Amino acid sequence: VKRSTSKSHYVDKGNYRHFMLKEIYEQPEVIGHTLGSFVDLTTGKTRLPASASIDFSSVKRMALSACGTGFYAALVGRYYFERYARIACDLDVASEFRYRESPLEDVDLALFVSQSGETADTLASLRHAKAEGLQTAAIVNVDESTIARETDHVLPTLAGPEIGVASTKAFTCQLMALAALSIRAGVARGRISEAQEMEFTKTLQETPRLVNEALHLEDQIDQLSREMATKKHALFLGRGFSYPLALEGALKLKEISYIHAEGYAAGELKHGPIALIDDTMPVVVIAPHDRSFEKTASNVQEVAARGGDIILLTDRKGAEAKVVDEAHTIVMPRMPEILTPIVYSIPLQLLAYHTAVQMGTDVDQPRNLAKSVTVE
Amino acid sequence: VKRSTSKSHYVDKGNYRHFMLKEIYEQPEVIGHTLGSFVDLTTGKTRLPASASIDFSSVKRMALSACGTGFYAALVGRYYFERYARIACDLDVASEFRYRESPLEDVDLALFVSQSGETADTLASLRHAKAEGLQTAAIVNVDESTIARETDHVLPTLAGPEIGVASTKAFTCQLMALAALSIRAGVARGRISEAQEMEFTKTLQETPRLVNEALHLEDQIDQLSREMATKKHALFLGRGFSYPLALEGALKLKEISYIHAEGYAAGELKHGPIALIDDTMPVVVIAPHDRSFEKTASNVQEVAARGGDIILLTDRKGAEAKVVDEAHTIVMPRMPEILTPIVYSIPLQLLAYHTAVQMGTDVDQPRNLAKSVTVE
Repeated sequence: VKRSTSKSHYVDKGNYRHFMLKEIYEQPEVIGHTLGSFVDLTTGKTRLPASASIDFSSVKRMALSACGTGFYAALVGRYYFERYARIACDLDVASEFRYRESPLEDVDLALFVSQSGETADTLASLRHAKAEGLQTAAIVNVDESTIARETDHVLPTLAGPEIGVASTKAFTCQLMALAALSIRAGVARGRISEAQEMEFTKTLQETPRLVNEALHLEDQIDQLSREMATKKHALFLGRGFSYPLALEGALKLKEISYIHAEGYAAGELKHGPIALIDDTMPVVVIAPHDRSFEKTASNVQEVAARGGDIILLTDRKGAEAKVVDEAHTIVMPRMPEILTPIVYSIPLQLLAYHTAVQMGTDVDQPRNLAKSVTVE
Repeated sequence: VKRSTSKSHYVDKGNYRHFMLKEIYEQPEVIGHTLGSFVDLTTGKTRLPASASIDFSSVKRMALSACGTGFYAALVGRYYFERYARIACDLDVASEFRYRESPLEDVDLALFVSQSGETADTLASLRHAKAEGLQTAAIVNVDESTIARETDHVLPTLAGPEIGVASTKAFTCQLMALAALSIRAGVARGRISEAQEMEFTKTLQETPRLVNEALHLEDQIDQLSREMATKKHALFLGRGFSYPLALEGALKLKEISYIHAEGYAAGELKHGPIALIDDTMPVVVIAPHDRSFEKTASNVQEVAARGGDIILLTDRKGAEAKVVDEAHTIVMPRMPEILTPIVYSIPLQLLAYHTAVQMGTDVDQPRNLAKSVTVE
């Protein structure tokens, strides 16, 4: 089946079988829109949307918090802000942040992430931060939401309405917003030169094309999902930028296929989860050929030695390293590190989607879950 | 079977079937020993062991890192230091900390936790912190270890040799060291008065007695383990001080029974994992009747409404709240909040142990795992 990118935000399924699939295919377009509000595409310079006026030059430490998928976006954000802007980041799930009573004296900005802008724990965390006198900002997908009204700075994602309960396009738009913001912050703090800024924004503009390329892997992933659909468990592993993706990939599969998938920092494998590995446990490894590749490769070999069935998401260079003989390898395009969390999300979404379709679950309305968790 | 507390550190199993069980029963004694090196029991004042001379009055922010069980101890430590000493804490699994390049300018002390003192990623993180010019301290159980040699300050746990691969007594001794240290730090920072210090150290001295009481629950837990041993999955939930325990309880079960157990902050339940709940999924909830109890209770009700089989660890007050009709309730003694992570560890250890025994796995030498992970 040949599919084209959806051109419309009208809330119907179009030619797609599920909203989730439609939303997956909307990503090249809506990620581009989101980028456009953080980067002036004519000059290549980063900027803030009109609804925000954060002075990052005075921000040395941030506190990030969110729930569920938004939390994993914030975890990617932490890696972005620390690497590109040298801003230290505290990070919490919102249900813990609001009660933890952590000392916030040295925090210059509290940043929240919520698709709906109504997530109860995130809203309560925002109010807690305001009561503590903190400057607040929120990445939200719904402009008219309570969080958008109450925060000092609104950073909108332009994903359009997301109907599928399992977040896809909202997540990658959150990542794009965080990536662009971290570059903006790095420039404001004098950590990124004007020339580097241009280089970064040029790179960010490659995202829609690379996401499109990743979408072409759908048939291969559909094949893999047939085996995944026979499993009861899965483990997802990654390091560094790919560690939050391991968590998000597992969450996606869990939400819609009800397979018990769990994400782990690959370095923790030997500290417990490796005991679970046998031939009934597929292991999805997210490993672009980056600075962590060799370490992750050695984890993959340990999994293989114990009979684990491996799905390896990597790029041509990673595939050529022939880490193990028997892995199912999904070969992604090569790309700069800042883009990997966004683009590697695509195969993880497709894997969850097709596995759920194979199993016949209600993809858009999975059991027990609500789109927006507005009670605690 | 009546068992007495082991009086010896000689490395044999004594009358116990496994080292793990022996080590579980050693806890009242070795936790008391560990306490003795952080509290002068004659004056009731906190102190540092001779191998450490940390000036906490100048510590405003710490970076904690460790692997596996040590990481969950560090996570409890974060809650302790933030609440009792108002020291902000960054926290990382060591395999991420060493590569994350987080800005450390405002970190006054890096604290590491390792039973063996040889954990490869933790050692590498220690070296990274030293190279960044940070003051370092390490909680270790082996005095002669590399980490003990290389760190500025050594904070020994006195758990004695731990043979079982799944850590039990080393973990609770780490928690005791962290609890006492956080009080020491609170005193040094002027957050805890002399009278409060006496109160806290008196409370800490109750631990061996309370652990002993918890050990008396073994028969009840043995009964519960018969059902657990028929399961393929489990979920562990907790909030606040009990959140790290949910992670550790799941890890313990995973390590020795190979049941796919996963720990979650209870507040995250509705953001994904609740999709997994059906009548094949037991849910272990750690919920002393503390400030989070009502919130956790409402999560328990959601689990029950979806057919989940609940094991509720709580105290008399929590049990009297009759949160749901059908839970298996384990009634723990009442105790001040600072002790709950230590004492609630006991039923989680016993549950993992008896489940593994039921299943006939090799409890002391679980498959794929090594006691000390000295390669990355």
